[in-house]
Amino acid sequence: MRWIHFALPGADAGGYGRLDDEDRVHAVRGTPWGAHENTGQLLRLADVRIGVPLVPRTFYAAGLNYVKHIHEYAAHSGIAANVPQQADIGYRAVNALVAHEENVVIPADARQVEYEGELVVVIGKKARDLAPERALDCVFGYTIGNDVSERIWQKSDRTFWRAKNADTFKPMGPWIETAFDLENAETTVRLNGEPRTRFRTADMLFDLPTFISRMTRYLTLHPGDVIWMGTDGQSPALHPGDVVEVGITGLGTLRNRFVAA
Amino acid sequence: MRWIHFALPGADAGGYGRLDDEDRVHAVRGTPWGAHENTGQLLRLADVRIGVPLVPRTFYAAGLNYVKHIHEYAAHSGIAANVPQQADIGYRAVNALVAHEENVVIPADARQVEYEGELVVVIGKKARDLAPERALDCVFGYTIGNDVSERIWQKSDRTFWRAKNADTFKPMGPWIETAFDLENAETTVRLNGEPRTRFRTADMLFDLPTFISRMTRYLTLHPGDVIWMGTDGQSPALHPGDVVEVGITGLGTLRNRFVAA
Repeated sequence: MRWIHFALPGADAGGYGRLDDEDRVHAVRGTPWGAHENTGQLLRLADVRIGVPLVPRTFYAAGLNYVKHIHEYAAHSGIAANVPQQADIGYRAVNALVAHEENVVIPADARQVEYEGELVVVIGKKARDLAPERALDCVFGYTIGNDVSERIWQKSDRTFWRAKNADTFKPMGPWIETAFDLENAETTVRLNGEPRTRFRTADMLFDLPTFISRMTRYLTLHPGDVIWMGTDGQSPALHPGDVVEVGITGLGTLRNRFVAA
Repeated sequence: MRWIHFALPGADAGGYGRLDDEDRVHAVRGTPWGAHENTGQLLRLADVRIGVPLVPRTFYAAGLNYVKHIHEYAAHSGIAANVPQQADIGYRAVNALVAHEENVVIPADARQVEYEGELVVVIGKKARDLAPERALDCVFGYTIGNDVSERIWQKSDRTFWRAKNADTFKPMGPWIETAFDLENAETTVRLNGEPRTRFRTADMLFDLPTFISRMTRYLTLHPGDVIWMGTDGQSPALHPGDVVEVGITGLGTLRNRFVAA
């Protein structure tokens, strides 16, 4: 099932709806992973503005989690490849979120902005101390993220605060899909319509059950948390006017234009 | 003015109230930094349970921001002292928050848990591109935080996810004070009643206007964000049964007991 967070054009606040196979939105009151009921409102997808699927309570990110990306990033940045020995989760920040079709603004002093197409996991249930074989029980669904990064700041700054969390650097969407076949999924990133990066979404260094199991040994996951699972391959430097599309099999395509500040 | 987030004993949900000089709580509907109105309910502080002052939208932390702490932490951990050259903000996670008087649970495999008493800044207004001289305009008030840290994990892990964000590792409170004299404030940390760490709260490497000005050059601060400003000095290793009190002049005292998992 597909859930979108939407608003009517011009409206400030929005709500959730189920998206059917005929591109109709069945609006609900409440959240998809919590109590909700149909409002009876039926809209056409073309008539609504798609919002960020959710503003996460905690915004987790695996960071380096595909071996090829680790080596390519290291070579490209002139640093030693540092393949993680254990699943240590990191964080991103909600100020940076933008929705499908919203612009990514390249800061005036940014010099090397790149894309990172990622699988995003949406948590639906409170979870603590989950064994790997039960880890997926707390997952509500999946969406797509673009972990936009400024590589110079990523090297120079003590944290990722502006390298990865400048306003608009975290496109997420377009919707949340509850049924997903990770094993057969492929992630494809297109730049101005042309496929530039392609990888098996499941080729992770540490898979999702490993992350969730290890995380919940020390922390409680909550409904509305998200986990971004990392990226593979490499991105060219992006420029104003570029359009980046991140597609994952079964999850749709997240499209954003990059613009100058 | 002092604002507390409270609940009646046994109640799940709570609300905000103004705390007066006679320890009475004047309950409101809404948030202190947003629209709110008196409910007419008047309670005694002794009759309510004090909650976490707020669950921040984004949980910012300055990290290394007092020079003495940087040198002492480096010597203590056998690493080179790394004094930041610029105000790069970091993050903590809301899963770890506990209120005044709630327990900090030491994980079974933790070996070296320490306190870090910190000033906490609560943002009340949306802010972007603030010059240093206008930076404090977006601040609603101040509270106290204990940035509990496991030093072995802080060295071994790729991120601070469990070293600083294990469940219960982030006591915050007891309330939010809107009038605060930073220049004359002192932070005192007591262990089992005995003063162990004391420093001028204002002795920061990068002060609050510097952080806010630099942050808002790249990101939007939102009402309900918090910024933890770092700590000075050093902590002994803590053990089950220890009680840590962090006091800051004018802001009260945040007290938490450490217990075994």
